[in-house]
Amino acid sequence: MRRSIATVSLSGTLADKLTAIGAAGFDGVEIFENDLIAADLSPEDVRYRAADLGLAIELYQPFRDFEAVSPTALAHSLRRAEHKFAVMERLGATCLLVCSNVSPAAVDDDALAAEQLRLLAERAAEHGIRIAYEALAWGRHVHDYLHSWRIVRAADHPNLGLCLDSFHILARDVDPYAIETIPGEKIFFLQLADAPSLPMDVLYWSRHYRCFPGQGDLDVAGLVSHVLRTGYDGPLSLEVFNDIFRQAASMRTAQDAMRSLIALEEHVATTIGESPSPGPVLLPEALPVSLAVPPPAVIPSGFAFAELAAPAIGTAGGPLAGVLGALGFVRTGVHAHKPVELWEQGEARILLNAGSPEGRDEPALTAIGLESPDPAAAVKRAESLLSPVLPRPRDPRDAQLDAVAAPDGTEVFFCRTAQPDHSSWLDDFGMDRRDPAAAGGNGDVAGEITHIDHVALTQPWHHFDEASLFYRSVLGLSPHQSLELPDPYGLLRSRAVSTPDDRVRMALNVAYVGAADGRPDVAWQHVALASDDIVATARRLHTAGTAPLAIPDNYYDDLEARHDLGARRHALLRELRLLYDRDDHGEFLHFYTVTTGRVFFEVVQRLGGYRGYGAANAPVRLAVQHARLHHRSD
Amino acid sequence: MRRSIATVSLSGTLADKLTAIGAAGFDGVEIFENDLIAADLSPEDVRYRAADLGLAIELYQPFRDFEAVSPTALAHSLRRAEHKFAVMERLGATCLLVCSNVSPAAVDDDALAAEQLRLLAERAAEHGIRIAYEALAWGRHVHDYLHSWRIVRAADHPNLGLCLDSFHILARDVDPYAIETIPGEKIFFLQLADAPSLPMDVLYWSRHYRCFPGQGDLDVAGLVSHVLRTGYDGPLSLEVFNDIFRQAASMRTAQDAMRSLIALEEHVATTIGESPSPGPVLLPEALPVSLAVPPPAVIPSGFAFAELAAPAIGTAGGPLAGVLGALGFVRTGVHAHKPVELWEQGEARILLNAGSPEGRDEPALTAIGLESPDPAAAVKRAESLLSPVLPRPRDPRDAQLDAVAAPDGTEVFFCRTAQPDHSSWLDDFGMDRRDPAAAGGNGDVAGEITHIDHVALTQPWHHFDEASLFYRSVLGLSPHQSLELPDPYGLLRSRAVSTPDDRVRMALNVAYVGAADGRPDVAWQHVALASDDIVATARRLHTAGTAPLAIPDNYYDDLEARHDLGARRHALLRELRLLYDRDDHGEFLHFYTVTTGRVFFEVVQRLGGYRGYGAANAPVRLAVQHARLHHRSD
Repeated sequence: MRRSIATVSLSGTLADKLTAIGAAGFDGVEIFENDLIAADLSPEDVRYRAADLGLAIELYQPFRDFEAVSPTALAHSLRRAEHKFAVMERLGATCLLVCSNVSPAAVDDDALAAEQLRLLAERAAEHGIRIAYEALAWGRHVHDYLHSWRIVRAADHPNLGLCLDSFHILARDVDPYAIETIPGEKIFFLQLADAPSLPMDVLYWSRHYRCFPGQGDLDVAGLVSHVLRTGYDGPLSLEVFNDIFRQAASMRTAQDAMRSLIALEEHVATTIGESPSPGPVLLPEALPVSLAVPPPAVIPSGFAFAELAAPAIGTAGGPLAGVLGALGFVRTGVHAHKPVELWEQGEARILLNAGSPEGRDEPALTAIGLESPDPAAAVKRAESLLSPVLPRPRDPRDAQLDAVAAPDGTEVFFCRTAQPDHSSWLDDFGMDRRDPAAAGGNGDVAGEITHIDHVALTQPWHHFDEASLFYRSVLGLSPHQSLELPDPYGLLRSRAVSTPDDRVRMALNVAYVGAADGRPDVAWQHVALASDDIVATARRLHTAGTAPLAIPDNYYDDLEARHDLGARRHALLRELRLLYDRDDHGEFLHFYTVTTGRVFFEVVQRLGGYRGYGAANAPVRLAVQHARLHHRSD
Repeated sequence: MRRSIATVSLSGTLADKLTAIGAAGFDGVEIFENDLIAADLSPEDVRYRAADLGLAIELYQPFRDFEAVSPTALAHSLRRAEHKFAVMERLGATCLLVCSNVSPAAVDDDALAAEQLRLLAERAAEHGIRIAYEALAWGRHVHDYLHSWRIVRAADHPNLGLCLDSFHILARDVDPYAIETIPGEKIFFLQLADAPSLPMDVLYWSRHYRCFPGQGDLDVAGLVSHVLRTGYDGPLSLEVFNDIFRQAASMRTAQDAMRSLIALEEHVATTIGESPSPGPVLLPEALPVSLAVPPPAVIPSGFAFAELAAPAIGTAGGPLAGVLGALGFVRTGVHAHKPVELWEQGEARILLNAGSPEGRDEPALTAIGLESPDPAAAVKRAESLLSPVLPRPRDPRDAQLDAVAAPDGTEVFFCRTAQPDHSSWLDDFGMDRRDPAAAGGNGDVAGEITHIDHVALTQPWHHFDEASLFYRSVLGLSPHQSLELPDPYGLLRSRAVSTPDDRVRMALNVAYVGAADGRPDVAWQHVALASDDIVATARRLHTAGTAPLAIPDNYYDDLEARHDLGARRHALLRELRLLYDRDDHGEFLHFYTVTTGRVFFEVVQRLGGYRGYGAANAPVRLAVQHARLHHRSD
């Protein structure tokens, strides 16, 4: 299918927008009128520039408040239309979006609306222009696509058809099934946007919170399936108004938009044959258009490792090594020719990298390794969804690791740890790597930590939706509900993503936190380690002389008020500074280590089938972390 | 009246919050439970710290989901309550907020709710604690204060009363008049918050957009009047959940909160005698409490001057001097002993200051002078509303200028220019100051510019509400509707404030604009000059070889489509790059100069009674300004 995007979806000048849209590989573009008006490019300049970039001008938009008005207003609007037709001829645009009238002056009279739209279509036809009439969700009288379709049918002019917009239809909970009753050739244009579920007026929601398909909660793919079954063969065109995208870099947003369309087409292609509705079903092979089908997602089966930049590690280890040791980790190997240490406990593996490429001056989580059934296929999937594939190591001695960059810059490696069918990254740590089960000093045996439960990454505020789509489409993780967590200096938005079997879990956070008054801008990251005996792990930490994050006594007073866990258990939680949560499926015990640079560790134990991440306790954790930071900077 | 604020309204640790609340002069505080839980202060620590700061702990809050539940749930909640009573005894708090149950498990049974609340009140009484029951706007069954009052009346226990919250009442458009039917002694607590009109669900609105009284659109003063007429003599307590305040500095927010309460009390004091409602009216002298009555606002009668930092001015003038000259301004004087030049045209006066105190390296608007009927009284007003009064000049030769600092740091001077009753700041520019009407070179006479029409100031994003309240309460300007203006890299929120006679007009903007990708963070400011012949002013600029901001041709094409102004007028607008707007009252012509540092000039001509600020044209202006900046930084 042809892929298009409205210029209003991106930031910058019109010239910047066109460049970004072309670079992302779109076939066409909707010119948003205000972008043209504010541009120092003539319509001819825009036409030639778009052509040079391989972009068709699919639509000129919007033309407002036209139909169902008084004769005087009609005359004024027809005059206005003639001016716009002239601009469109200069642009080389042949389709004009007319959205349903929102003015209080509009009359509730379908016959009058049809008559006036027919007149407009006749005038447009003289210029070779087609009119795509759209029911805005907040139109004065017309706000439902079946209503706009009745008017278009009554007007009965070949140059008059419909524009459908997924947001306007799905945001009002209008059933999209009846789209299939419209002949495809009368659907002139299809605009697509998603949005998160937010409890607000539809106009306000639309103006500020639209996002690309797959980033929100609307069933855009289902709607597209209905439209394609009509025989529609026009473009899929994104039209998004979003306060964040307005501020973000256009090249990047355009790539994100294209990733969204590819994933959407894949979703449609895999489901369109299975029509749940009665009546004739167009099978995929009968579609008038072809849909993108990228290589399938390769679902990861676990964490292979987490890599931390540890600039102060030196040879005697740094603070991170100290904490790992106190948690019962053992240094089992050193990279053959890089300043990287491998620390292990059970299946949990942490790399400490003293030679971070970007010269980081503080500890940070820089990479994660995921166990993959097929690393090469995982990379192909990522490539087809426009994710930057990282160069393979140049040193022929190193294992061939396949990796891509996540939107926040975290490197994601696809591994097959100790599998006979694939070279293992563990081999880079030498043949003399010690068995972690036997490696502990002082007669210590393997600890209680079994594996990495999840990692939590704070995303830059303008890449949160992009990150959510990346983990969903590229890695095949499913997003969970968005949460808001109070922070002493703001709010965190948090969304977990996980594989269906929960063997890979990640928490994506974005921090709307004030960095005023000399407070450092904190974007904490952490690695949560699963323990099968968190009490023992906590005692081990205490014995090593390392204190966990000091959860206040008031927390335990409140916990006793909320839950009756028995005096002994309450005393134990308080003694070891363990936090507690429960859901319908089980219980959750956890504690944190203190922060080093941007990084800390969490140790968790899931009892029963607890599914969450202890979000109820995050505000206490954040308050203590901020207070420590504040205290230190005094 | 006692003044109080909930800790949740401020950012930071609990200790920080208490310090800020004490410093702002509050009498008491509501302890928000989550703030205590996350704090490393014992309840006793909080009690003594509050006492040291002169703060009474007026309320502990909230206790949730208590009433109208099953016996099992009741037993669990009573156990929880006993724990909380213990914490309150340690805190020295004697009033607990219980908010109406939001749980799906709550039963719609007022008798049951009353019975269970009575039980809670009996238990509380054993600890000397009172229960204040509040109808949340989103309570499951109880969401209206008359409903909560029926339940409290039925429960009939001396330790059970009501908490009223202005937001919960006004946000649901519940008429607050019937509050007067409640005996004052049964209103245990009064929480106050305002909010801007926003079209969203009341819970989402409450959690993110509350603000201090006078910053939003709710009639908080009217509600307080009803409450005071009952004989209520408890505190006025602010409780605000606001995404911005969460991120701002607590000391500053607490001051802003206190300013809001003082202005609110004044508003109530001046209106409470005039009850529009039937029945007995408590006259102000009969009130059980006293209300703050600051010295009255002194409404300014015009602009005396605008002062610009002009670091490059040198002796030969800098770019700002060049633009002023091209606009027809004449340098009429130089400060006796400071590097400040006075430029005049008509009643428009601009100061160019080469010796900016803070070592600014780019031109910026640093001060405005307002004509005041009584400068000393204006300062007294500002002082009583906690605005920082600027030190008077130490040099005995200088005129005694009274000034305060606005929230964004702009200095606001109160002047009596050339009035016999007051020393005039103009005298500082020497006795040989030239008459602007005669001062022009080349036989030039006075220009077309008559006065300063308005100034526009971009506020830091976390001080926008504070600024709006400052101009309203301290200077007596009235706020107009908030607007959202698209910027190529974000959105601007803009709100005008003006005197009733429009002789002082200001536009306050806040820019949610991305500063990513090396784009400079722009916070433009401008001075709009009124011309009585904008065509002549524009020609004068052209003749001087100075180009106005280059509005694109596409703007004029669109203007011709939207308005039929006649070919000659359209050609003139296009030739001179004038912008056009109209409203129901008249027409507006304007143009901009190019930006120097943070500053530019606008020249405006109001035809008829046009009331706006040309906001419809702001997006084009912003796009051209950004494109220029972008081009320059390439």
